[in-house]
Amino acid sequence: MPGTEFDVLRELVARRRDVRRFQTRPIGSDILDDIFHLVEGAPSVGNSQPWRWVQVDGSEARAKVKSSFQAANEAARKAVPEDRQGLYANLKLAGLDEAPLQLAVFCDTQTTQGSGLGRQTQPEALHYSVACAIMIFWLAAKARGLGVGWVSILNPSDISDCLDVPASWDLIAYLCVGYPEDEHYDPELERYGWQDRVWSRHHVIKR
Amino acid sequence: MPGTEFDVLRELVARRRDVRRFQTRPIGSDILDDIFHLVEGAPSVGNSQPWRWVQVDGSEARAKVKSSFQAANEAARKAVPEDRQGLYANLKLAGLDEAPLQLAVFCDTQTTQGSGLGRQTQPEALHYSVACAIMIFWLAAKARGLGVGWVSILNPSDISDCLDVPASWDLIAYLCVGYPEDEHYDPELERYGWQDRVWSRHHVIKR
Repeated sequence: MPGTEFDVLRELVARRRDVRRFQTRPIGSDILDDIFHLVEGAPSVGNSQPWRWVQVDGSEARAKVKSSFQAANEAARKAVPEDRQGLYANLKLAGLDEAPLQLAVFCDTQTTQGSGLGRQTQPEALHYSVACAIMIFWLAAKARGLGVGWVSILNPSDISDCLDVPASWDLIAYLCVGYPEDEHYDPELERYGWQDRVWSRHHVIKR
Repeated sequence: MPGTEFDVLRELVARRRDVRRFQTRPIGSDILDDIFHLVEGAPSVGNSQPWRWVQVDGSEARAKVKSSFQAANEAARKAVPEDRQGLYANLKLAGLDEAPLQLAVFCDTQTTQGSGLGRQTQPEALHYSVACAIMIFWLAAKARGLGVGWVSILNPSDISDCLDVPASWDLIAYLCVGYPEDEHYDPELERYGWQDRVWSRHHVIKR
């Protein structure tokens, strides 16, 4: 039974995880429609709405994404201090084999929507708008029982190439989406010994 | 009376606006503590938690921020097609004079937290983590009755200079925070004739 809006949001944020362990059962299209409708209310600089969602269904494209992940992940493992390489290798860092829905999310850097308002001196605000929309997607998915995993261990140009998107679209995120195997409050990287979280709530600097 | 988690989130997102019209009354420190505590649950690449919040209270710093905004805004107005310059000039694009709380939010690009995990091939994921935290802040503030306005019409280096932060910190956002003058569902830029929003919910491309 939810309490105030703030209580509901706090609980949603606390249970939101970066999910890598998915069930393979599919997601109903009505659920996805609801989520995307909510996501349209995300903020964007000058109301530019620069997010572009590409649903990656094809087996060839998925294989290429996986191959990009594997190469980047192996390089990353080798770059870790030797005594932590075993620990790194045991982390599950993506749900690419199981997640029924996979979304590549791009920023259309050439969009005319918004007439450039608000992004003359800080053009990267456009990219941050897409990150904000992804955050809303993540919470909305969680509120419908879904987990989201953000895979950043890959080469963005590999993804753009295999999905054949315009050169002016920058990859912001590759998302795995599906029903999670389980639900927990502690992050995977904490649970599997990579590191603890820092609780630093009073670290607002004043000037 | 809230419904499901999804209903609560949908309503929160629908009423979230980029606010430029603030009351000047201060925000209780207990409210801010609650919000920042919630924000610590934001996702970040490799749990790097790279956000750095600087509360801008000093009158000298505030004057410099305002001056950076004014210069960037005047340049932006001149770059707009002539027949829209009057419209642009009439938009209120920041609440810098009224907002009782102002926060410069930075990304610490040299943080060792997370040991670099997840950001070898897509280092900008660190910046996107900060944008995600800002989105959570925005919703949490809204859930406590506060409005947030993201001011991107300024020169990031002006802000970094006047706040004397480390060179490795990149400015992600300058936020005005306070109780809004009023609450509405339509974005300011729609309400004041700059442009309509696009509703494109079914525009997920499949590959």
